[in-house]
Amino acid sequence: MTYCLGIVTQAGLIMAADSRTNAGIDYISTYQKLFDFSLPGDRTIVICCSGNLSITQAVLSQLRRDLAGHSDINLHSLPTMYDLARYLGQKVRQLQESDRDWLKQDGIDFYCNFLLGGQIRGGPIELYLVYGQGNCIHATPETPYLQIGETKYGKPILDRTISFDTSLDMAAKCALMSLDSTMRSNLSVGPPLNLARYERDSLVAPMLVQFPAGHEYLVEMRRRWEISLKDAFMRLPDIDWSRQLMRSLSPVSESVPLDSSELN
Amino acid sequence: MTYCLGIVTQAGLIMAADSRTNAGIDYISTYQKLFDFSLPGDRTIVICCSGNLSITQAVLSQLRRDLAGHSDINLHSLPTMYDLARYLGQKVRQLQESDRDWLKQDGIDFYCNFLLGGQIRGGPIELYLVYGQGNCIHATPETPYLQIGETKYGKPILDRTISFDTSLDMAAKCALMSLDSTMRSNLSVGPPLNLARYERDSLVAPMLVQFPAGHEYLVEMRRRWEISLKDAFMRLPDIDWSRQLMRSLSPVSESVPLDSSELN
Repeated sequence: MTYCLGIVTQAGLIMAADSRTNAGIDYISTYQKLFDFSLPGDRTIVICCSGNLSITQAVLSQLRRDLAGHSDINLHSLPTMYDLARYLGQKVRQLQESDRDWLKQDGIDFYCNFLLGGQIRGGPIELYLVYGQGNCIHATPETPYLQIGETKYGKPILDRTISFDTSLDMAAKCALMSLDSTMRSNLSVGPPLNLARYERDSLVAPMLVQFPAGHEYLVEMRRRWEISLKDAFMRLPDIDWSRQLMRSLSPVSESVPLDSSELN
Repeated sequence: MTYCLGIVTQAGLIMAADSRTNAGIDYISTYQKLFDFSLPGDRTIVICCSGNLSITQAVLSQLRRDLAGHSDINLHSLPTMYDLARYLGQKVRQLQESDRDWLKQDGIDFYCNFLLGGQIRGGPIELYLVYGQGNCIHATPETPYLQIGETKYGKPILDRTISFDTSLDMAAKCALMSLDSTMRSNLSVGPPLNLARYERDSLVAPMLVQFPAGHEYLVEMRRRWEISLKDAFMRLPDIDWSRQLMRSLSPVSESVPLDSSELN
């Protein structure tokens, strides 16, 4: 499994990924999932991937091969982020076409997903999720983040804290905590954690940072976070059990229907 | 979908459940998932259920029929919580035997899971997860909570805050927030939320409370919680991007292998 996410805010872009790949619980490896394809001054491009490693590696190799001169259509030549997303989707489709039947006949997962975030000179900052079918969606101010891989454990923290107005430093900490929550609940997501930070309209290469397992910042962040959560619970008023809004059910009766006026 | 959880602590037992059932996104209904079968003075029994509604309703009906005199073997006659868990598992197996093939041939999910929590006079407080196969596991001081249904969104908050020493009031608030986080991220989990609270060795009926949609406590709890999370992020030190632990990847190169000494 893998967990990657991207966040677009008014101020810029944060992308983050774990580095764990597993083929069964007894075969766990480490592979980087976050890649910088920027051309400083002209465009900033960060790509994250999840899913079948042979397909995602092959797609990345194709992207690099085109950049190395194999094709005039590549990550540095196409004019918009949408074009890049469709181009990436086309690469995914080509790999699926060549490999999918072979994987399928042995029951091997062939799914894969990509996040593509960045900005091209003169265009807006954008974040795309490119599916294993080659189609794509993009983040919007109402839904400023996108996730791929093991997405559920890390979603509540984003839903409660991230908006389009969130600062980049805050968004980076939220992304890191979203990854940490996922790691803690699912062994198939693991360190090192890689983060990228890009300020809107700067068109420089993104700032990149890596947190290996046991990194002091991660350890301290987790410690402080857990204290903060417990404090927050302590400060919440206790539940008032005396109000007994729910009727106690007699064990031999049928369940008491709920008052439909209270539902929605 | 559904989300239910139980927490056993030194002080007692908390059980909690949502009330949403859906057959597709366009057919959403409300059914209670938390039931009190206590016999005050002798035993406290709370059952939560998730999964195929026709099976879980049928199992509950069988439990009630046995209690109403159909069988001497019932929730009020068996001597231990483990016996109750196996008895519940037996009911699940009987229903699976009669209905499973009919559901399977039309591709209908026949899975179901139950939580059974409580205490019988002279015995310990226990919490069981009874699977759709009829087998069961129980919570322990190391793993004091069990979940059924849509478990992922609400798990990180439990992992970070719940231990065997957590107070009952704190555990109840964590359970409610775990449900709220799940509701917020998954439309197939919804109000009203039902909670049960039982103090160890009291052998009284559990305290029960229901929170309908928009209940003032839920609204206020969510508002305060989100403020607390944002405050907690504000207080965490910002990420130090200057350390550049991750090498910036040249776009045309192969991925740089990570230093294996940093991994685990």
